Amino acid sequence: MATVEQEYAQASSLLNAPGLTQHDRLQRSATLDPAVISFAGGLPDPASFPKRDLSEAFVSVLGDPACGGLQYGWPEGLPALRQYVVSSLGRRGVKVLEEQVLITSGAQQALVLALNACTSAGDCVATDDVTYPGALDAIKNSGARAVPLHEAARAYYVMPRVSNPRGMSMSHTERARLLQRARHEQALIIEDDAYGDIAFTPAVEPPLIASAPERVFHVGTFSKTLCPGLRVGWLVSPLRLAKPVLDAKQSQDLQTNGLAQALLSAYLKTGRFDRHLSRVQQRYRRRAQRLIAALRRNLTAFRFTAPHGGFSVWLESDLRLDEEAVYEEALQRGVTFDAARPFRLNGGGGPFALRLCYSSVPQQEIETGVKRLAAAFAKVAGAAAT
Amino acid sequence: MATVEQEYAQASSLLNAPGLTQHDRLQRSATLDPAVISFAGGLPDPASFPKRDLSEAFVSVLGDPACGGLQYGWPEGLPALRQYVVSSLGRRGVKVLEEQVLITSGAQQALVLALNACTSAGDCVATDDVTYPGALDAIKNSGARAVPLHEAARAYYVMPRVSNPRGMSMSHTERARLLQRARHEQALIIEDDAYGDIAFTPAVEPPLIASAPERVFHVGTFSKTLCPGLRVGWLVSPLRLAKPVLDAKQSQDLQTNGLAQALLSAYLKTGRFDRHLSRVQQRYRRRAQRLIAALRRNLTAFRFTAPHGGFSVWLESDLRLDEEAVYEEALQRGVTFDAARPFRLNGGGGPFALRLCYSSVPQQEIETGVKRLAAAFAKVAGAAAT
Repeated sequence: MATVEQEYAQASSLLNAPGLTQHDRLQRSATLDPAVISFAGGLPDPASFPKRDLSEAFVSVLGDPACGGLQYGWPEGLPALRQYVVSSLGRRGVKVLEEQVLITSGAQQALVLALNACTSAGDCVATDDVTYPGALDAIKNSGARAVPLHEAARAYYVMPRVSNPRGMSMSHTERARLLQRARHEQALIIEDDAYGDIAFTPAVEPPLIASAPERVFHVGTFSKTLCPGLRVGWLVSPLRLAKPVLDAKQSQDLQTNGLAQALLSAYLKTGRFDRHLSRVQQRYRRRAQRLIAALRRNLTAFRFTAPHGGFSVWLESDLRLDEEAVYEEALQRGVTFDAARPFRLNGGGGPFALRLCYSSVPQQEIETGVKRLAAAFAKVAGAAAT
Repeated sequence: MATVEQEYAQASSLLNAPGLTQHDRLQRSATLDPAVISFAGGLPDPASFPKRDLSEAFVSVLGDPACGGLQYGWPEGLPALRQYVVSSLGRRGVKVLEEQVLITSGAQQALVLALNACTSAGDCVATDDVTYPGALDAIKNSGARAVPLHEAARAYYVMPRVSNPRGMSMSHTERARLLQRARHEQALIIEDDAYGDIAFTPAVEPPLIASAPERVFHVGTFSKTLCPGLRVGWLVSPLRLAKPVLDAKQSQDLQTNGLAQALLSAYLKTGRFDRHLSRVQQRYRRRAQRLIAALRRNLTAFRFTAPHGGFSVWLESDLRLDEEAVYEEALQRGVTFDAARPFRLNGGGGPFALRLCYSSVPQQEIETGVKRLAAAFAKVAGAAAT
């Protein structure tokens, strides 16, 4: 048990980042309170982390006399991981070469490298109307401009298999139309497949990269399936762009962390990852079902679609509620969620919406959490009406 | 023992990176041959990695029920590491706030973040005439232009305590002049202290950041002292720039890898790092002395200065030798080195020079390695003369 002093020290350290807003402070403090049910953050369930297998992997990595995992490595990443990407895409009907595969510091770095390789300042990058905030951030920081999917763009950022926050797959028609437009406009496509392995239904279509290898960057990660603290993802680039992308990666951070790569290589060699994958898919599917049922019972003013995969449900309403007031009210009632604003392409307001992540909420707390949310919404809506 | 087939598979994977030059291929293949004595690469000695301590740290990290090291973390890095940076700089006479400290994916990322925060496309960044190739790369990729230290610049990139490749410290006069010029030109300074803890003589001066906290970025890392595979470094920013730097870091890769950070936090808590540091300092000093002695006996046509610290000696000559021919000849004789070109600010030729790293060459192989180099130089010089 942590003492009160330790907890206080931890809390004050947590608030020691520069430029935190009041919302940041509330959000950070909430993570320290075990009584708060958190639908925020898109975290994988820590109970799913294969700790014993990773410990065995660690022993084998440190047993290697060359200490490969602790020494400098080559910028493209470990062969075993690049080969894993080649063969796992192969099983999904995509043929790529090991030379196209770069091991990155998570999917975020892969995304940034792809963006930098295909856009210049002022270019347009088209995305869904609600999408992954890290992508919107990266687009803005690259000097490009995010625009809606129906506009012409230099690059398209999409999540064809499992989208975030909606958890939806693109239909055959949507995919065909996107590929045709990209060809027509000579645009590139960034296929973010970060949640691709957390799917609740069998894939009907292969990844987009299968249909247009010369214009699709494919982004993947172990963060959702295994554990995010390792920070290991990958980028598959069109062959002609593989070298400039590798050079950019090397210039940014020399290489992805060697210890995590070596651990993963050793872990994959045990052949246990496939079984792990189906276990976590089932776990997240059960939680999604539980959340959907709780939403139907308790949040009837909200529209949503049951996700095909991923960690979250996106809820929309016609309510005009102050996001910050709802967040504070919910927190007081012991529940948190992700506010809609960072997910919105237009960055602005609109009727009240939110993302609820079921991924790291224990099954038996889901209904309680939703009831707390419903009470918070009612309270703020009631206050707004008076 | 690896079988011939395994070795072949390893070698062919190693050559599976995009766009390798003939030099890259030779260099990579050389790393697989245990008979080659390598003065190349600036690698720390793997025999110095505290494997047992890291194993203990791993057990304690995985024993944490919250699984902090495997889960997502906050972008600024773990409190224990940021506090380590604050207190270790404190011992060197520098007062910084935890808010200024960002934990990065190695010193390279710290350097890139600092460059991006203080330069725009077309700006000049002044550096030594020979300097760290990763810095020259990063300057080029940021759209800035590297110029000699005596030219006016928007930013100065320097290694005041221990430079790479020369292993020299800046004199009091050089430091004072640099600070004065930066003040006069309202320029920023990037103080790369990556080798600062591998010093063979006591520090006479505090880090530059002590003298001008409002205009100095300070870069450090555990890569040289502990092990590079962890990819954990840090950036101390002027307070007003800490927030934009943190935002840029988050946009690039969300956070530095959590497992390595948690391992390091647990390791630092044991209090064994100070003793480890003095052991590695002694180890590298002995190797430097051994190399210097061998050079004096065998390479009399070369000029060099005994380093004050770091991993390497920089050798210059008046010889006009083809770098590639020397490299190939040396490799045939079972020795490698770092060619001069990537270290040169002007990127070009010049009389033959090279970097020799003593850091990862076992003591008893240093003289043999130098003799092989001498023979290779003589052979190529002889061939050139005929």
